[in-house]
Amino acid sequence: MLGRGAATSYTGTMAFTIGMAIFPDAEELDFVGPWEVFTASAMLRERAGEQPDQVLLIADGLGPVRCNKGLRVLPDATFAEHPPLDVVLVPGGQGTRREADNPTLLSWLAKVSASARWTTSVCTGSLLLHASGVADGRRLATHFGFEDELERRGATVVRDARWVRDGQIVSSQGVSAGIDMALWLTGQLHSVEHARSTQRYIQYDPAPPYQADA
Amino acid sequence: MLGRGAATSYTGTMAFTIGMAIFPDAEELDFVGPWEVFTASAMLRERAGEQPDQVLLIADGLGPVRCNKGLRVLPDATFAEHPPLDVVLVPGGQGTRREADNPTLLSWLAKVSASARWTTSVCTGSLLLHASGVADGRRLATHFGFEDELERRGATVVRDARWVRDGQIVSSQGVSAGIDMALWLTGQLHSVEHARSTQRYIQYDPAPPYQADA
Repeated sequence: MLGRGAATSYTGTMAFTIGMAIFPDAEELDFVGPWEVFTASAMLRERAGEQPDQVLLIADGLGPVRCNKGLRVLPDATFAEHPPLDVVLVPGGQGTRREADNPTLLSWLAKVSASARWTTSVCTGSLLLHASGVADGRRLATHFGFEDELERRGATVVRDARWVRDGQIVSSQGVSAGIDMALWLTGQLHSVEHARSTQRYIQYDPAPPYQADA
Repeated sequence: MLGRGAATSYTGTMAFTIGMAIFPDAEELDFVGPWEVFTASAMLRERAGEQPDQVLLIADGLGPVRCNKGLRVLPDATFAEHPPLDVVLVPGGQGTRREADNPTLLSWLAKVSASARWTTSVCTGSLLLHASGVADGRRLATHFGFEDELERRGATVVRDARWVRDGQIVSSQGVSAGIDMALWLTGQLHSVEHARSTQRYIQYDPAPPYQADA
């Protein structure tokens, strides 16, 4: 895996294929947040006359997938058949506890991660990176409520960073943290200036309305 | 419409039905951001033994709706048949330009808004509040790139607030701003403390990775 650190030297003109694994009870915002970031980035590249990145939802089959809070989405491709992936993203959600014992998903993840430039997770998606072996020796972030459990399962957990990049593995904390991670990765894939334009397009100038608990 | 300002005095034990209108080319994060906020809020209420809010995607029919960046979702109910709504949310996306001339959607919006406690929009969803007449005399926020156009169409546009509450109308700026607005509304529907718990559950402690353009 040495040498993957050169990822930041990509030219701004390359286009990438980004695949997001989904499964029953995947958490909605974990993948739709990054989806919005990556597809907005693609649209801005297309407007600028550059080749846009392609973003796909990938699942076991093409039928509707019911997410953790009830949203039903349709996958674009299946684990058995999809284009080569430059970036893999694994969301969290209650479904990760079941998928951590699903050899189909875990072996797919190990296979695509071996040739992808980046393998990423949001929230408890880190459990699937860990269970598949693709994060062996890497530090991981996860949802604050799952840090103890992920550590108990043998992972090295970082508790004080919104997202963690360790080699080609990038993992984020819970749910909304995937947006920040996806913006960071957009800057790595293309350019910081392009990531800023993407952030501006989705008007991501967050202003949480109530002060946090003291 | 006088008297709607008393909304902040709801007790914390009531449950609400929240309906999100979707249509072809609705922007993904415009509704999935608030969806995550409202459904996470509902889950936390259920865990606490309280009646959870219900959140529904409502569309012209029950078939898949292709969103602005290609995500395909399945509606839960139709404009013709759904439970009474306490909260209505209208997302933006390129589809709003077409829907602004769709009498079915506009008359539905006028009808449900008349009995709802709150009518809300994200991004260019404000165009549909304006076109349906439900925002007559109200100030509106919208995506920064649409402010001039919305004003040209006769609306009163606020340009310096992430979301605007004017009577029972609440409108937000672009895309990700819907998350902040939905958290604010969660605090109004239930309690500020509950909104803070919801914010913590979705780990919404945003940290955009690159500094904004100077």
